[in-house]
Formats: sequence, structure tokens, C-alpha cells
Amino acid sequence: MAKTFRERAEELVAQMTLEEKVSQTLHGAAEIERLGIPKYNWWNEALHGIARTGTATLFPQAIGLAASFDEELVAEMADIIATEGRAKYNMHVKYGDRDIYKGLTYWAPNVNIFRDPRWGRGHETYGEDPYLTSRLGVRFIQALQGDDPVYMKAVACAKHFAVHSGPEGERHHFNAVASKQDMYETYLPAFKACVQEGKVEAVMGAYNRTNGEPCCGSKTLLQDILREEWGFEGHVVSDCWAVRDFHENHHVTNAPVESVTMAMNHGCDLNCGCTYPHLVQAVREGRVDEKRINEAVINLFTTRMKLGMFEEPGTVPFDSIPYTENDTPEHNRINEKISEKTLVLLKNEGGLLPLNKNNMKTIGVIGPNANSRAALVGNYEGTASRYVTVLEGIQDYVGDDVRVMYSEGCALFKDRVCVLSEPNDRLAEVKGVCEASDVVIVCLGLDATLEGEEGDTGNEFASGDKPDLNYPGLQNEILKAAYESGKPVVLVSLTGSAMDLSWADEHIPAIVQAWYPGSRGGEAVARLLFGECSPEGKLPVTFYRSVEELPEFTDYSMKGRTYRYMEQEALYPFGYGLSYTEFSLSEPEITVYEGDKVSETGIIRKGTGMTVRTVIRNIGKMAGGETVQVYVKSCCDGTPNPQLKALKKVFLNPGEEQEVVLTLKPEAFELFDIDGAAQILSGEYCVYTGTSQPDKRSKTLTGKGGFVNTFAAEV
Amino acid sequence: MAKTFRERAEELVAQMTLEEKVSQTLHGAAEIERLGIPKYNWWNEALHGIARTGTATLFPQAIGLAASFDEELVAEMADIIATEGRAKYNMHVKYGDRDIYKGLTYWAPNVNIFRDPRWGRGHETYGEDPYLTSRLGVRFIQALQGDDPVYMKAVACAKHFAVHSGPEGERHHFNAVASKQDMYETYLPAFKACVQEGKVEAVMGAYNRTNGEPCCGSKTLLQDILREEWGFEGHVVSDCWAVRDFHENHHVTNAPVESVTMAMNHGCDLNCGCTYPHLVQAVREGRVDEKRINEAVINLFTTRMKLGMFEEPGTVPFDSIPYTENDTPEHNRINEKISEKTLVLLKNEGGLLPLNKNNMKTIGVIGPNANSRAALVGNYEGTASRYVTVLEGIQDYVGDDVRVMYSEGCALFKDRVCVLSEPNDRLAEVKGVCEASDVVIVCLGLDATLEGEEGDTGNEFASGDKPDLNYPGLQNEILKAAYESGKPVVLVSLTGSAMDLSWADEHIPAIVQAWYPGSRGGEAVARLLFGECSPEGKLPVTFYRSVEELPEFTDYSMKGRTYRYMEQEALYPFGYGLSYTEFSLSEPEITVYEGDKVSETGIIRKGTGMTVRTVIRNIGKMAGGETVQVYVKSCCDGTPNPQLKALKKVFLNPGEEQEVVLTLKPEAFELFDIDGAAQILSGEYCVYTGTSQPDKRSKTLTGKGGFVNTFAAEV
Repeated sequence: MAKTFRERAEELVAQMTLEEKVSQTLHGAAEIERLGIPKYNWWNEALHGIARTGTATLFPQAIGLAASFDEELVAEMADIIATEGRAKYNMHVKYGDRDIYKGLTYWAPNVNIFRDPRWGRGHETYGEDPYLTSRLGVRFIQALQGDDPVYMKAVACAKHFAVHSGPEGERHHFNAVASKQDMYETYLPAFKACVQEGKVEAVMGAYNRTNGEPCCGSKTLLQDILREEWGFEGHVVSDCWAVRDFHENHHVTNAPVESVTMAMNHGCDLNCGCTYPHLVQAVREGRVDEKRINEAVINLFTTRMKLGMFEEPGTVPFDSIPYTENDTPEHNRINEKISEKTLVLLKNEGGLLPLNKNNMKTIGVIGPNANSRAALVGNYEGTASRYVTVLEGIQDYVGDDVRVMYSEGCALFKDRVCVLSEPNDRLAEVKGVCEASDVVIVCLGLDATLEGEEGDTGNEFASGDKPDLNYPGLQNEILKAAYESGKPVVLVSLTGSAMDLSWADEHIPAIVQAWYPGSRGGEAVARLLFGECSPEGKLPVTFYRSVEELPEFTDYSMKGRTYRYMEQEALYPFGYGLSYTEFSLSEPEITVYEGDKVSETGIIRKGTGMTVRTVIRNIGKMAGGETVQVYVKSCCDGTPNPQLKALKKVFLNPGEEQEVVLTLKPEAFELFDIDGAAQILSGEYCVYTGTSQPDKRSKTLTGKGGFVNTFAAEV
Repeated sequence: MAKTFRERAEELVAQMTLEEKVSQTLHGAAEIERLGIPKYNWWNEALHGIARTGTATLFPQAIGLAASFDEELVAEMADIIATEGRAKYNMHVKYGDRDIYKGLTYWAPNVNIFRDPRWGRGHETYGEDPYLTSRLGVRFIQALQGDDPVYMKAVACAKHFAVHSGPEGERHHFNAVASKQDMYETYLPAFKACVQEGKVEAVMGAYNRTNGEPCCGSKTLLQDILREEWGFEGHVVSDCWAVRDFHENHHVTNAPVESVTMAMNHGCDLNCGCTYPHLVQAVREGRVDEKRINEAVINLFTTRMKLGMFEEPGTVPFDSIPYTENDTPEHNRINEKISEKTLVLLKNEGGLLPLNKNNMKTIGVIGPNANSRAALVGNYEGTASRYVTVLEGIQDYVGDDVRVMYSEGCALFKDRVCVLSEPNDRLAEVKGVCEASDVVIVCLGLDATLEGEEGDTGNEFASGDKPDLNYPGLQNEILKAAYESGKPVVLVSLTGSAMDLSWADEHIPAIVQAWYPGSRGGEAVARLLFGECSPEGKLPVTFYRSVEELPEFTDYSMKGRTYRYMEQEALYPFGYGLSYTEFSLSEPEITVYEGDKVSETGIIRKGTGMTVRTVIRNIGKMAGGETVQVYVKSCCDGTPNPQLKALKKVFLNPGEEQEVVLTLKPEAFELFDIDGAAQILSGEYCVYTGTSQPDKRSKTLTGKGGFVNTFAAEV
């Protein structure tokens, strides 16, 4: 019988000297010529398209993908990403380029929980909910890694393990304090799903400490939970230069040799950075057992073997993917479709949307993000072969039929566009455009220079994080000027996170949350504005009324955070989003299971699951997508608000209906005690079935509630 | 009889206190409420479209307009600019914005002679030739200022007077030393034409000194030449903060009061900057006669009166231009046509161009300027409502018929695109794209961050100027990689100045010089590449074989500079540019005039002029534009090479012909002695009639010569 990849890796590693083995534990792994091992750079990125290595299909940012609430859409994208990754890899290998961003090991997805809207990197995530994050993370990983019976198409990496969500400026020395209950209820589930269900090949540790331990050297996280509790068999990689932080910033060690010892001994196999060369010394000094080095390097070579990097030419099916499979017209058509499905309609007073181009002569398009390519892409982005901004999308859509008048409106965050001008040097132009227009589209927001990662942003205030939830600079002023013009105004908000939209909600009739919608996002926005498609996105994060409602940014307790624990009413709740068409749900039929068998009592106990069966029908006049959402709540005091535990995305033509069956696994009813132990609470559980959260605000906004079914529960 | 504008200005100024008058001599002129004078900011820009004040039609950069060799095209553009300026002015006034860049006094054109290809601001000019610069400058001014019998539509400003062309980094303290011969033969003629023929309303002084005098306080330039010799009647404005340079950098004065005295007494009416408030002290101390202040302020208010700024509503016809006349679809159609006419085809071996999309499946588009908006606009640019990059233009042109593959290729000037990568991190991608393509378009060049103005550029080497004539960074390497792929390669060079194209000329079959072709330049480039239009641009600057041929950058002697004085052969000469079609010229009929009468002798004397009559016929298969060029040379030793002295642009369908009559005024035969005195040299003059320069290299490149007619000359 043929040897397994791990066996082959073991044999290969057995031939290496200590120095050679250590040379393989760095992201820029060295060539070992005598063993026929080419150099390999482990660092590549693919969060929403192959990134940082030239042209590729550039999909919507992760937060927008989350808003699709569509697992299959994310999988469709990830499969394309893997194909393009292979096409690029084959091309790069052919031309001898084995540098950074040229490999097959992608450090995506980011399944951290978007705990606080101020976090600059929140737009890399799938939002604030562990269940949604799990579902999308799992499908991203599965599709990226592929379904070949022998070889992996690409390697995904779940990051940043664990409990990581700002502040960016403090990440190299910060200690996130999280209760076991919050860990198991909020911070860990997505990682667990990625490992156990997604079979993710790699996990990346976070920069910060969690409960005192630096994540990339945390026995609790890497050994006890990841390897032992969850049975992870892939490799662990440090965040970049995070091991150096142990002694330089966290001060949990005193020297590099101590840091590499801690990281390696606790399970970090690969060092993104340049600290692991000290492992040679660590082994010589008896700090690290060479067996542990062997294990790490075997983990790493097993991954490379799975990718087919040590096979004869012609063996690996993906080797034949030509470079022309990169950035294809077909991939870009799918990209545009995906963009459409990420857009969330937050408000549509009096049916202002969709617009009818036959009813207008002139449309005004205003704002710093109207013609911004940066506002299409977010961070961890590739290079697109075509960008379509919102302005361009509208121009192309209306063609010669409607005059489009444009004003940048204001700078993204400065108080003037031209340095020698007085502040607000485009305000008169805004007024001029509004006056000449029949309807005005105001495109505000941020880009990755204002919300992003520590070190690569232009945010002078908060090192990558947002200081608050307000549009920066003069953006609110131009929105007010548009409002005061008396013309119908549509706000299109291009951000990767929740803003304070209170004023807009009071004054502006139509609001579209467009996230960073991908390289062709402007085409999608235009199609949505003019009714070529119906909005179907749902919020993957809560839109708060203001930052004042929120706990301190540095406080990692979930109390008062996200829809699951918040006590106030949201402005726009998680799970919410309007449509141009209308859907009806039939009264759900719920079947309770004990294991595989239908429960005779219908009582929820440990191991109880359910299926929720309902028929959804498009009773409106337009084809559209809708998400059936099932929320579960224990009625015991002190338990979280209703939590999303199942979802199903459907697309229906007018008059069309579809039966959907949603499964609530036993975990759906589990809550966690202060020790992080899963439990069923006795009393009652409510199961809510609808197309949004069951909270009051969602009912007000959508004009409809869902169904509630109540079940007794016993411990 | 109604009062003249000057009389009204005199009456208004007579009511002002000294302080009030001085407050009007600054570019940010104060309100004088008691006299009903609103504040006015004199500073606005309009070199190739209304600039720095929001959306406007964004035409090709001036150097590209020069390449059109088309006076009427420049006039067509300038008329649109003036219309848009009025549309914006009316809108801004309505909304109370009277700030910088909101007025009607535009500091364009730049008629400095592009003496050395390293100068960063050369792309603001009409090139290296005084005659071409004069023609285009005059028509720009005439069309911008308009032909209303009473009011000026806008005010133009000829700058920077005089002898100004770098180095940018030294401009605040530099002394340009120019012989009187060079002054009158090269540096002054365009200004003289702008004043006497263009009737330009404003002239701006340069930063530097010329022959020891700071230009903005130069008696020689401002009094002796501009006012007395040429009879200029408008106002003179300083370059911005140039008067401060007198004491701070030039050290020709010791204190602000001395600087303002020098500037004002020598004829500088308006101070862009904030030094002129010292004029109050200067008058009080008897340094400046208040009459001279009166004269300056009367000059300024006469200009404002001419613009109709003190009329009753409804009086000035331009007041009714609505804001919707800005950035109209029609203006943008014309803009695209103008872009086409700026493109110069430098090489077309084997008729590679025009491309036929039916003959290709895949086209590669490569290079840092392929998808760059910055490479469309140059400097002193407005904001366009639509940018079409070369990549976008090609994509839109070929539609779904041809696959377009794109690589950025390399960073514009850095050695890698991603900071963590090894150098040349897109080289493999370039090879991959070339391999997959049937033809490759390589878009190299610069943008205004690399050639531009001191202080607002990103050029770390030379403070706005080019250090040499090479493409920066790795651009040559990717061009070589494309060449080595063996695929047919077209080089599209987007720069505002001549580069060293020696290697490309040897290896690359087709080369297009695209300048900074305006916001829709990519559409124009695509149409040219695919033969929807025939190239008709001609070089307004010499393309040297290398920078080594050139005198020191700081040397303002014309010896060895530009086609008029160079001794080596150019790589691509001034006046040169290929076409897709072919033109024939009939033997010219030349008539010699003495004054208005036909000369009986045909001998050139002082006052002798000529007409050159020829029939140009399109003998090719495609409609196209061509420029009939007439050059004049005295055959005496030590005289300049043949100099352009007449031109006529025509557009002909296949088989169509047109008689053109070009006029050589008496000045065409004038040369200048060391004292700057005009003279006719005895002996012989040659008159060359053709479609390029009469030099050997042009003949080699075009495969045809023109006609030479020889005339005796007597002093």
C-alpha cells in the first residue's frame, strides 16, 4: 500500500539535520537542495480573492460576503479563488518565482468575532455571530481546500486563534481577558467548526495574549483546546513576528530563545517572522526536545505533500490548470453576482427604490466614495483587471438616457479637498449638483486607510481602529446639504463596519449598506438602485445607535455586545435587511429528535435536535433572495438573547415557493457555564422562525414578525 | 458716452484708502463692503480644464495639446474651459463660495519653453519651439477670453515670465543666465505673441532670477520689455510667494518692505502670496509712490470690470450659463476627440498597428500606467466624472470578442509592488500574460508624482525634475521581458516629456507616445491602437538618444538644445509623427511680399514675407489628420537649424485634397544678434515645406522629404 503523506513527510524529515529542520519552520522556508526540497514561502493571502500577487478576481470583502448569509455563495467564491491560486502557482513555479504570496497556503479566513464595531479589521471577518461565522468559515475552507480525494487544491488557515479583535494599536502587548463562558459561547465556536467540520489544514495564532498567555505560545489554546479537545491535525502558524512580541512587547519571556521555546513547545509549528532560528540553540540547550521539532516539521511537510508539491509532473490534477484560468470573464460575472448579494437595503421610505431611469433626466452622484476604487476593495485585496466604482456603475447603467452629475463632495476624512482652500471647498458644488438633479445618490463611508490593520493605515486617530461610529471629516455635512436640497436622497454607505446612521435614519429616505463590494461593486450597486436585482443582504453585525452604548473597546466581556447580549434596541439589527419583493413563510413544522429518532416527548434534553420545516413563497412582484433564519433562546434568566442557530438562503421568482428544512443540532440548545461546560438549561426554550431576528426593532422595521415555538427543557 | 472699464476702475480706486488699495493687491483680495466690492480670490487654474475645484471636463495635458499641432483644437478646448469656468463661477457665487479656485482669472497657459527634457513642469508647456508655443498660446488665450464685444468670458495669464524651466528644486534662489540673443530668439517670442496677438489680460512672473533680477521684480522684464516694448496693458501677478523669495532666498533685498518695493515699482501689480501688505509701510516710507499703487489697483479692477463683476444682474451675457453646462456629455465627446489628436505614433514596423481584433484571441495589457488614472491627467488637473485608463479603453473596445489579460508589471518607480516581496515581484506575471497573449501592449511612463512641480511631487531624487531620461524602477525590465516573449509588442508611453527610447526603438516594433491624454485618454489610445482613428500627433519636443547629449540642466544657453540648436541626430525629432494613412504634398508655390505687395525681386529683406501654397492630398486608405510644416533657415554660419515658422493642420478623407496657404511673416526670417536686435542675414534663406522637420533623421523615419526653396537675402 502506498505511503501516506505523513509517512512520506516523516521519512523526508528524518533525513534532515537540526539546522535544516529549523530552516523549515520559518514562513520563508529554505531550499534543501540535497533532499530535492525547493524553497517555499508559506505566506499567501486569499480572503476575498488571491491577494497581493497581481491580477485576480477581486471579490467583495469578507464582511459583505457575510451579509449574503449564503454559504453556497461563499463556497462558489472560494472554489474560484482556489482555481485562480493554482493557475497563478503553476505560472509562478514555471517562471521560478517562489517568493512570498506565490504559494498555495492561504492565511484565510479570518473567523474572529467582530465584537466591537470600532475594530479596524472587523471587515475581514464574517461579522459578530459565531454561528454565521462558523457556517461561512467552514464552507470557505471546504471549497478552498477542494474535494479531490487525494490532493488538497489549496490550504486554508483559520485565524487569529483566539479572542482577537483589537485594539490594533495595542495588539503586540495586549492581554484579552475573556471568561470561559465567553470563550466557549462566542470566541471559540467558529474555530471549532473550522477544525472539526471544515477540516482546516492550518490555524494561525493571534498577536495578543488571551488570559495571560500569548496566543502563539498558549498551552491552553494550542495544546489543550486545539489539539486535544478538538483533535486538530494540521499545522499551527504564528501571526507575523508575533513570537518576537513575547519578549519584546508581552514580556512573558526575556529573550528570543525563551520565546521560541514557549511557542514551539506549546504547539506553534511555523513562525511567520524570523525568530525561530533560535530553535537550534533551544534544542541544544535542552529547552525544546528535537522530537517536537520533528513533529512540527512533519506537520508542515505533510501539508506540502497534501498539496502535491513533491509529486512527479503530471500526477497532481491541479498542475494542469493554465494561467488563463485566472481572472476569467466567467469568474468576473460570478463576482458581480456575488457583489449584488452582499448589498443590504436598510431603509426604503415610500418605495423610493428602485429608481426608474425613465422618470428622471438628471441624477446626482455625490461623495468621496462615489468614484473611489479603494472603497470597492477593503484590505487583503488583490489587483483587479477592472474596477467599477458606484459612479461608473450608475453611468454605465443609465447610458445616454440620464445625465449623471458628479461631485466628490468632500475629502474622505480631511476638511478640504485642496490644501490651499478654506474648509468644505466642495460644498457649493454639492448644492449645485443637487439643484440640477432629480434624485441624488450620496456615497459615503470609509476605506482600508481608515479602518484597517495596525501599521498599514492612514488613520491618524486610532491606529487602524475607528475612533467612533461617525463618518469622518465633512461627510455628514454633505449628506445634510443633499437632504436640505429637498431632492430625494439615497445614501450608499461603503464601509466594512457599522456606522452611526441615526441621523440618516431620521432624514434620508433610502439607505443601502454596500460594504466594500468588490472590484465590480459599482455595477452591482447600480443594478440594485435601478431594480435589476432585489436586495437580499442581511446585516452580519449590529448597527448601534451610537458608540456610547458600547462597553470599553478593551473589554472582552460579551456583556452588552452584539445582538446576542445587547440590552438596548439596535438602530438596524443583526439579521435585518429589506427586499424589493415580499416573502411569506408557512407556519413551521418542527420535529424534535433524540439522536436519530423522533422524540416522543418533544422535550429538549442533552442531545436533542430539531428540524424546522417551512415553505417560503415569493408573494411579491420581483425575483429575489431571502434568508430563513432560526433563532433559539432559553427562557432562563441571564441567558443570551435569541441566537441564530440555523439559516437557509433561497432565491425565488415571483409566485414561486420552496420547502426548506433547517436543522438545529444539539449544540443549538447548549449554553455554557462559567467553566465553559456545555449545558442544557431546564425550563423552556423558544425557537423563532422568520426572515430576521425576532427582536422588536426588526419587527418594526420589516413590518412583520416570525413564528415562535416553545419547548420544555430538562437537564 | 459710457465710461470705459478703466475709467470706472479709476473712479472706484479713487475712493479707497491706502490700506484698502493694498488689500486688493493680494491674490486673496479683501471685501470692501462700503464700496460694494465683494472679496475676490484671483487664483484659479485652467491649463487643460478647470482645475482644483471639483468636477470639470479634464482635457489632455498641455504637452499633448501641443502634439496636436492644431491651433483650432486648442481654441475649441479653451472655449469649453471658459464655458465651464463660467458655469462653475455662477454656481459658486450663487452659493456664496468666493474662495481660491472659484474665480474667473485663470493662471494659464504656461508658455515657457521646454528647454530641457528633465524639467518636471515641461508637460505644462507647449513644448520646445517658440513658434508652436506662440500659436497655441495665442489661440488658447483668445478662445478662453472669448469674443464678446464688451465683456471677457475669462481671463488668461501667460506664465512664467520669463526664462523659466527648472531646476525645480532651485527655483526660489536660482539665477537663469540667458544671452539677449537667446532671450529674443527663444525665451521671449511666445510671451510677445500672447501679449500682442493674444491680448492676454495677465502675465505672471517667474520664481527665479533672470540675469540677476528676480523675475517678479525685474525692471528689464516687466517695465522695459513687457510694458514699454510690447505695450502690455493688463495686470502682472507674481508667482506664489515669489516676492518673499527676494529677501528669503534670492537675497536681492534684505526685508519684506524692500521686496514689495522692488516688485511694485518694477510693475508687479498683484502678489500671489502674503507679502504685499508691507506696501502700506513702503508707501509711508516713500519707497513706493501711491500713484504706482493706484495704477496697479486700477489694472486689477479694470480686469474685474472686464469680467463683468460690477454689473447689474442680467447685464453680462455669461451670467446665464447654468451649472449644467459644466462637464457635459458633449464636452466630453470633444475631449475624447482631442485626446485622439494628441497621440504620436513614433514607430510602426511592419504595419503592426492598427491591430485587428478579429485576428486575436487574447491581448495582454501590461505596465504600471496601463490602469492608472494618474497617468491620464498630468498636473494642474481637475476632477473628471469619468476616467478611462488605457486598460479600460482596450477592454471596452474589444468587448467580449477578445480576452484581455492584465498585469501591473511593476510599480511606477519602486523595485517591487508589495513591500515584503523580493524585487520584481510581478515579472513572472508579465511572462505569464505574454505567453497567453497574441499581442502585448506595454504601458510605461511617469505621472505627476514623478515629473512635476517642486514641493508637490513624490520624486525623491530630483525635487520634481527627472534625474535622467530613463523609465524609473523596473519599467525597462518588464518591457524587455515582453520583448523576450517573442510576442508582438506595442509600447504606449504615458509621459509628459521625452524619454530615452533608444532600446525600445531598436527592439519594439510599435511605439505610441500618449502624453497624459486626459480623463478619457484610454478610449482614445484604444481607438488608435485598433485603427478607429489614424495617429496625427507630432512631437512638440525632441526625443534625444540620451541625457548625455544634453548640456548641464542649469545652463540656460540654447546651444545644443532643442531641434533648433542641437548638433547630434535626434532619436525622434521635433515635428515627427507617423500616420496610418499617407499624404502627398504638391510642389509649393511661394509668393514673396514686400509689405502688402508682391516682391518683384523675390529677395528677402527686412519686412519681407511669403505665402506658401501647396495642395495636400490623402493618398492612403484611411481618413486622417496631417500637419503641413514650414521651416526657415538662414544659410549663414552659426545660425540655428531650420526653424518652424508656419503650420497648418488639415483633416482629409481618403482621396480628398485641400489647398493650404501658409503665411511666413517678416519675423519668420529674423534672427537676433548678441544684443537681441532683430536682423535679416544676407546670403540665402531656405524655406522647407513638408510634413515634418527637414532633418535627415525625419526623412529616414518617414521615408520622405519635403520641398526646399532657396531665396537670396540682403540686409
